[in-house]
Amino acid sequence: MPASKVNNQLQEKHPQTPSGTRPIRGGAASERVHTKVIAGGHVLEVPCRRVHLTNGESCDLYDTAGPAPQGGTGAAGLPKLRAAWVQDRAVGPGAKVTQMHFARAGIVTPEMAFAAAREGMSPQFVREQIACGRAILPANVRHPELEPMLIGRDFLVKINANIGNSAVVSSIDEEVEKLRWSLRWGADTVMDLSTGRDIHQTREAILRNSPVPIGTVPIYQALEKVKGKIEDLDIDVFLETLEEQALQGVDYFTIHAGVRLAHIPLTAKRLTGIVSRGGSIMAKWCLSHHRENFLYTHFERICELMARYDVSFSLGDGLRPGSIADANDAAQFAELDTLGELTQVAWKHDVQVMIEGPGHVPLHQVRENVERQMRVCHEAPFYTLGPLTTDIAPGYDHITSAIGAALIGWHGTAMLCYVTPKEHLGLPNREDVKAGVIAYKIAAHAADLAKGHARARQRDDHLSKARFEFRWEDQFELSLDPETARSMHDQTLPAEGAKTAHFCSMCGPQFCSMRITEDVREMAAKEAREQGLRDKAREFVAGGAEIYSAPALPLA
Amino acid sequence: MPASKVNNQLQEKHPQTPSGTRPIRGGAASERVHTKVIAGGHVLEVPCRRVHLTNGESCDLYDTAGPAPQGGTGAAGLPKLRAAWVQDRAVGPGAKVTQMHFARAGIVTPEMAFAAAREGMSPQFVREQIACGRAILPANVRHPELEPMLIGRDFLVKINANIGNSAVVSSIDEEVEKLRWSLRWGADTVMDLSTGRDIHQTREAILRNSPVPIGTVPIYQALEKVKGKIEDLDIDVFLETLEEQALQGVDYFTIHAGVRLAHIPLTAKRLTGIVSRGGSIMAKWCLSHHRENFLYTHFERICELMARYDVSFSLGDGLRPGSIADANDAAQFAELDTLGELTQVAWKHDVQVMIEGPGHVPLHQVRENVERQMRVCHEAPFYTLGPLTTDIAPGYDHITSAIGAALIGWHGTAMLCYVTPKEHLGLPNREDVKAGVIAYKIAAHAADLAKGHARARQRDDHLSKARFEFRWEDQFELSLDPETARSMHDQTLPAEGAKTAHFCSMCGPQFCSMRITEDVREMAAKEAREQGLRDKAREFVAGGAEIYSAPALPLA
Repeated sequence: MPASKVNNQLQEKHPQTPSGTRPIRGGAASERVHTKVIAGGHVLEVPCRRVHLTNGESCDLYDTAGPAPQGGTGAAGLPKLRAAWVQDRAVGPGAKVTQMHFARAGIVTPEMAFAAAREGMSPQFVREQIACGRAILPANVRHPELEPMLIGRDFLVKINANIGNSAVVSSIDEEVEKLRWSLRWGADTVMDLSTGRDIHQTREAILRNSPVPIGTVPIYQALEKVKGKIEDLDIDVFLETLEEQALQGVDYFTIHAGVRLAHIPLTAKRLTGIVSRGGSIMAKWCLSHHRENFLYTHFERICELMARYDVSFSLGDGLRPGSIADANDAAQFAELDTLGELTQVAWKHDVQVMIEGPGHVPLHQVRENVERQMRVCHEAPFYTLGPLTTDIAPGYDHITSAIGAALIGWHGTAMLCYVTPKEHLGLPNREDVKAGVIAYKIAAHAADLAKGHARARQRDDHLSKARFEFRWEDQFELSLDPETARSMHDQTLPAEGAKTAHFCSMCGPQFCSMRITEDVREMAAKEAREQGLRDKAREFVAGGAEIYSAPALPLA
Repeated sequence: MPASKVNNQLQEKHPQTPSGTRPIRGGAASERVHTKVIAGGHVLEVPCRRVHLTNGESCDLYDTAGPAPQGGTGAAGLPKLRAAWVQDRAVGPGAKVTQMHFARAGIVTPEMAFAAAREGMSPQFVREQIACGRAILPANVRHPELEPMLIGRDFLVKINANIGNSAVVSSIDEEVEKLRWSLRWGADTVMDLSTGRDIHQTREAILRNSPVPIGTVPIYQALEKVKGKIEDLDIDVFLETLEEQALQGVDYFTIHAGVRLAHIPLTAKRLTGIVSRGGSIMAKWCLSHHRENFLYTHFERICELMARYDVSFSLGDGLRPGSIADANDAAQFAELDTLGELTQVAWKHDVQVMIEGPGHVPLHQVRENVERQMRVCHEAPFYTLGPLTTDIAPGYDHITSAIGAALIGWHGTAMLCYVTPKEHLGLPNREDVKAGVIAYKIAAHAADLAKGHARARQRDDHLSKARFEFRWEDQFELSLDPETARSMHDQTLPAEGAKTAHFCSMCGPQFCSMRITEDVREMAAKEAREQGLRDKAREFVAGGAEIYSAPALPLA
């Protein structure tokens, strides 16, 4: 069922919310608008953010902020966009409701049509990508608040933000606030990594307020259920935990089923051993019992459960390198081989899969990670943490890792898991979350540009044109963080008049290259006009007169 | 004259200065130490920063902070390290005193030996690299305060920080303070881009307090001398400006001699025209007079002057792209061809040359820039501004450009010119300078790791080992910014005891992968011991007894 073209725009205005119109200053403004698309008998309202420029043009941007919370406070959660779409489907014990199942049956779901419209792609292409496992559309049938999106290397590179409390700090309200804050700056999915108190209630509040897919690492809660005793974990408590979280609507689970007993000795000589929490838990379980990882031995039962809700796998890289010294080693790649094997098991059950990746990797070893993952995991989407390209900058690991993330995104990673400045040091606060999201929006966009994504460069071109024409307000409004751009400009030239001035504080009027370039262009245009007159004169001469002879001019 | 091996260490301790010992907290500390090297009859004291770790090990780091200012205040400037070295040389009208001249004559200067020792390279190799133009050692004979360093692709990737006042803001003291601040965080060279008041005095104060090479863009001051009227510029006022600055000791000049009259029309259809200040000035001059760039036509006179002081060329890329849309275009590459031609002219005069590069370049076009520059400019060192890999993040261009800088550094760029968060928005303040320098130290180090530089990984390995062993203070002290790392850790776990705890606030003790890994290793070791006993038992069995049979264990 192909999506129809843009035929209407519904405009919401909620200035107090992230999704609302930004206040008009100096004429530039942005608002969330919707395009109607018909699919599967449903009218889908596909959102984007439209930036209105002061020169009369506009620029539409992919938008993750979501609709305004019902009632304004968020206690009632977001509108249930997908409720009617999901109702249509056969939901019962054993029934497969996954997007992969429908895609393989040749059906374009409303989710596919919605996500396709957001990307500017054809719904059929999206269906094909999901059917063959090259893309996933994480969308638990019990997460009706979701605005469907795609993770796959032929789509825009996505970013994930991690939130979640720990035994040490944080409350439910704080976590919902962190969720909204992440979305405001552009997170495409959010993982709730809570390990502290009120783990169930925190997740419920997050899901009911999330327009983006929510991921979790269920082993954390399973471990809480056995009071922290790793050796007491088993498949029953794990499946019980999965069911609890799937019922709440979690869209993807990180599961460390690739940490096999035989891989553990491969980490013995590492500089930094096992640095994944889930990976170290499973390694300890395996050694305690002298047995194979129960997530691996019971993998098909896990698939059956996840197929009933359409929870996607994010197959965890429990043996990812935690330092430059350990990058691309035997332990990491042995686990990757197992993840490739498990991918095919999940696909047999029509369960969607993405594969997690490192970690700490120097620049020259980044590309090998993607290419090997594609080959070994049959082109299932890759979802990498960074990677960090050096270990020496704690406090700045959003930057060390944005470098690796941009590179790995360009080479084919579908989603980038953010790293905040607090990585290795402490729990991120609001400012750290923002710094991490912005750094990763930069990395993802740099990757999109390098991949030649059709829509990506529009924003750069609009912004650079605004910059060149001294349309300061348009430049701010098109940027990833308008507030910061505006306030930095105002620090040196605060006067409102400076925002229309044809120079800035960097060089002052005399040294402004852009102002001089304006002069150069005027001179060039004048010369071209004169050249035109001289050409006319030449025709005149050629026609018999001999009045005027012009020197050759270098200007076209 | 080969440098001798390490034979002594002189230790300075000036806790109140950037070069002094950092206060000992929790046992970790760092100090500036010197290694004595004999070269050309001089005893050279080559500095590094030694980090003393709490486990008794130490790690030596390349250090740019310089010695403590004489008298403590800096008014008297730094000690004149090179005064005796330079005195030995024939200095007179027309005499060539360049490092390239000596290198080609087979002479290892004290500067070469000093810089070689800092890099851990042989002086002969350094001499060869300078002789063939693949590296430069910018060292004006009138800048005796300099600690010599190398710019070339076989050495550590260097970074430059720009400072300088403008017509709008800043004072002399502020600029000296910005210089010291840049060096404290690791800038390898500093450019003084002042265009405001007291341009001569500001430069003098900077040079007398700088242990690193200082670069300038002399056309700015030349323009001040003709009261800002671009059309009044000529070669005489330009040479007069060069002489004035060379006499003060400036180590390299950015000169936009590659902006030729015929190139200007190539910028006509660009999205952002000409964005280099120097480039736009020269373009306007060319058009105003309908004549070829006087820097190009009089290039040999410029070379003769620079050879007398050993000022190095930084051949400016006046037509660098100012947006993703304009990257790698005909204008940029036409200028690059001219820079290649001028490189050979400068080399004829034994004048050292590096080549400036863009600008704004998407990831997939970065490599072409370096490879083309190497080919066209005969492997003269490349010195790039970023490049910025997207235009959409004003306020975060230290990050957009650190991504491009890491990549272009890996592919062979010798020095990276920093970009601060204020790029495109305003003049950088103290915090912006720090953010820019740290982002570029990260990019340069990531590039060094990727290039397999012999010494680069030591720091990563020491830091990661400290991290794995919960030696928090060592982790802080080895990081690019110990203060920030420490304060971020303290935000969540401020107690002094937390700095020896075997967990942190991110996961708490129960979920700490590193703590669990310790357990895993203990279990593995225990098993290995038991395996050893069982092996003994098997020998016993093989020897005739039949008491015990062990299952195969996966652990090595």
